[in-house]
Amino acid sequence: MIQLDFLQSILKQEDNLNSTQALVDWIEDRNRTVKVDVKKTTFDNLPGWSVDKQTGTIYHESGKFFTIEGVQIGVNDDVRVKQWSQPIINQPEIGYLGFLVKKFNGVLHFLIQAKIEPGNVNNVQLSPTIQATRSNYKRVHKGKSTAYLEYFKDRKGTVLIDQLQSEQGARFFRKRNRNIILEVKEDIEVLEDFMWVTLRQIKDLLKVDNLVNMDTRTVISGISYGEFSSDVMNLVKVFSKNHEVDYDKDVFCSYVINGVSLHSSAEVHSWLTELKSNYELNVKLIPLNQVKDWIFEKDRIYHKDHKYFEVLAVNVEIANREVARWSQPIIKPSCEGIVAFISKKINGVLHFLVQAKLEVGNLDIVELAPTVQCITGDYRKGKNEYEVPFLDYILNIKKDQIRYDVMLSEEGGRFYKNQNRNMIIEANDNFDLQVPSNYKWLTLNQLMQFMAYNNNVNIEARSLLSVLTF
Amino acid sequence: MIQLDFLQSILKQEDNLNSTQALVDWIEDRNRTVKVDVKKTTFDNLPGWSVDKQTGTIYHESGKFFTIEGVQIGVNDDVRVKQWSQPIINQPEIGYLGFLVKKFNGVLHFLIQAKIEPGNVNNVQLSPTIQATRSNYKRVHKGKSTAYLEYFKDRKGTVLIDQLQSEQGARFFRKRNRNIILEVKEDIEVLEDFMWVTLRQIKDLLKVDNLVNMDTRTVISGISYGEFSSDVMNLVKVFSKNHEVDYDKDVFCSYVINGVSLHSSAEVHSWLTELKSNYELNVKLIPLNQVKDWIFEKDRIYHKDHKYFEVLAVNVEIANREVARWSQPIIKPSCEGIVAFISKKINGVLHFLVQAKLEVGNLDIVELAPTVQCITGDYRKGKNEYEVPFLDYILNIKKDQIRYDVMLSEEGGRFYKNQNRNMIIEANDNFDLQVPSNYKWLTLNQLMQFMAYNNNVNIEARSLLSVLTF
Repeated sequence: MIQLDFLQSILKQEDNLNSTQALVDWIEDRNRTVKVDVKKTTFDNLPGWSVDKQTGTIYHESGKFFTIEGVQIGVNDDVRVKQWSQPIINQPEIGYLGFLVKKFNGVLHFLIQAKIEPGNVNNVQLSPTIQATRSNYKRVHKGKSTAYLEYFKDRKGTVLIDQLQSEQGARFFRKRNRNIILEVKEDIEVLEDFMWVTLRQIKDLLKVDNLVNMDTRTVISGISYGEFSSDVMNLVKVFSKNHEVDYDKDVFCSYVINGVSLHSSAEVHSWLTELKSNYELNVKLIPLNQVKDWIFEKDRIYHKDHKYFEVLAVNVEIANREVARWSQPIIKPSCEGIVAFISKKINGVLHFLVQAKLEVGNLDIVELAPTVQCITGDYRKGKNEYEVPFLDYILNIKKDQIRYDVMLSEEGGRFYKNQNRNMIIEANDNFDLQVPSNYKWLTLNQLMQFMAYNNNVNIEARSLLSVLTF
Repeated sequence: MIQLDFLQSILKQEDNLNSTQALVDWIEDRNRTVKVDVKKTTFDNLPGWSVDKQTGTIYHESGKFFTIEGVQIGVNDDVRVKQWSQPIINQPEIGYLGFLVKKFNGVLHFLIQAKIEPGNVNNVQLSPTIQATRSNYKRVHKGKSTAYLEYFKDRKGTVLIDQLQSEQGARFFRKRNRNIILEVKEDIEVLEDFMWVTLRQIKDLLKVDNLVNMDTRTVISGISYGEFSSDVMNLVKVFSKNHEVDYDKDVFCSYVINGVSLHSSAEVHSWLTELKSNYELNVKLIPLNQVKDWIFEKDRIYHKDHKYFEVLAVNVEIANREVARWSQPIIKPSCEGIVAFISKKINGVLHFLVQAKLEVGNLDIVELAPTVQCITGDYRKGKNEYEVPFLDYILNIKKDQIRYDVMLSEEGGRFYKNQNRNMIIEANDNFDLQVPSNYKWLTLNQLMQFMAYNNNVNIEARSLLSVLTF
């Protein structure tokens, strides 16, 4: 049973192929030996890239990779009409975010990559075995071929997970990647930048700031650990040695117990149907130079109030990549963000307070998001712009209710030193079960069901859920 | 348990509030008493509608209802690049397709409507309690208010089903409706054009040509009858008096048995992920007068080879509608189509051969479709245009392998006398399990799981599955 293999990869802590210390040493070594140089420049100094004279669109001369365009949104939710425009990354290609996994000592290990991206806060972050856009692996850049590509292209192995998942809806126009985990039986050459680690080790490293990259987080967030309608206490007993921490025990139960949720599946679907039906949405790509309130300079595009993000141009030189030297536009956020889930035991089972969030790049209007997701404005400025439900609660939470609190980076290939504070909070018993109409309490088991179908759970939620362990 | 109530509504045949004969008499009576007059006219003789001089777009002067625009598609599936353009209906509003249901004699009854639409083959067809676009029920047409609207708007009752489902992807641009079933406890006034019927009675009337309309079919197709992983033979025994026909027994098992399918859920998701990843799709709305190969006349828009469909203009006068008289553009197909599922027992459980079909109006590239869906070209002409897999097999099938064969109409509010032959075939034991890469054998239980999430199963498949009974 696949789910059991994933469970073992978290629980069997004594059977690691490589010690976590060896892993940390290896990352430090990669950080020392690999030379990274990222220099800001002007848009007319990006070899391979051009700015369209008529539309302002920034595009690669191959017609591939991605473009920076404009997008215009009109939202009508029966209460108000809202309209805005903004720059957006248009990357219609679907790439691979994939792990090769293999059993050693009976325990599933993941082939992790020490990868350097131009936007990374730490130079080296742990990425999946493969992390490649179609343009990358088709070698539009004429560089080195992508390691291990043939396994994924020819599906050499057993597919354990294979999902299309969305990326940042505030910055990408309907971008998705293929999240895939492939189990191999045969021996595989472990290249210089790669190492076998268990799921437990990934989870442990997720407690360190900016070490496990977004792509790893999205892939492992899709892992399901099975589903049981009864006998759960027996299950918990079986794994009890790993469940000394109460919250871990609760997380485990929330993943695997089915049918004890506050809301039935039909109720949750109805809630989403209602929200999607109430919005009338009009989204269209427009020429970049027609976005309103954004200022265009030779070396950056930014909002007139210095909000949201800016588009920069960089020349990059990295030693262990397919191409040692390249240029590209990159997005720099205007400030650090915060994403947080509030969790609470309801009827004995841990539930997470999920937000149905509308974002401009969403394929289907709303996706399930964390309780709080402030990544486009400075959340510490408070009520300047708009009131964010539950933000004050989270910022003033007592220490003993914080289950996770870690800085995690967005993908360094598109985003420049973009990190957000990621928190998981356990609410007190007296926390109100009544929530605004675009929020809902779901168990992890329910969230996993939505995740199996594409474009339901957003990247911020998936990324944050990936830190959960038991 | 909701599922049990639906089961009873099919199985308890002795407890109907109204006899099926009374129902048939009532429909005949409505057909006799209601006056219908639909006259073809020119586009400049459609009060309330205009043709945009620059773009050719046909629009309602309120800005509501729908528009006829152009759409341009580029498909790149790694093998070939295909490009075409065509007229399309753009109807971004999400309307209600909803049933009020109520228990009489312990059996769930559906409040069905004898509704006349301008395009209906028979004048009267059986429609859900409510069938209204947002413009309709907001009374943009300034007509009578929509009956029973308040139940759906204020959710007066218990929601049994509430799903967003797609409509014809070859003719609508990403149109969806809200498929909803609402159970009420209180007494409800039954208006002149309405009657309480059981699910069994709807299923029985589905064996009659062109009597149960598309909107009824899509709503009831979403009904799930529960899920059981074992003890199925006991279940079957319980209902055995209703399962004298072997195929009915097989249909029932295929709906409710979980975990015995040829392909696991993960495999099916992976299959769809692979297909969606391989297509690079570029779809955009264009001015209607820029579609290629279409001819524009005063009273119709048609393809130069008289293929696909034509857009007509009609003046309508109907007595029992909210508005007795109105005008509108309407789509007339160039020929009758055929939709068919091939089913086959695999490992003792009935599976359906599902096609992943790309259609221009799909929200997410492909949706699950019937084995054969030929509704845009004349399937009887055979190989003139392109080879349709499994079409010959179906057209030459032996009579004793045909489980259903009925003519069913598309929605008469947009489509003019548009009927398709709907067939369900039971394949022989020697039918090849190996199928082309865009086909997959699924149980009904698996299809129901996809159906619970929007935009996965297309209207042609849902409509056809609605005829299944047990």
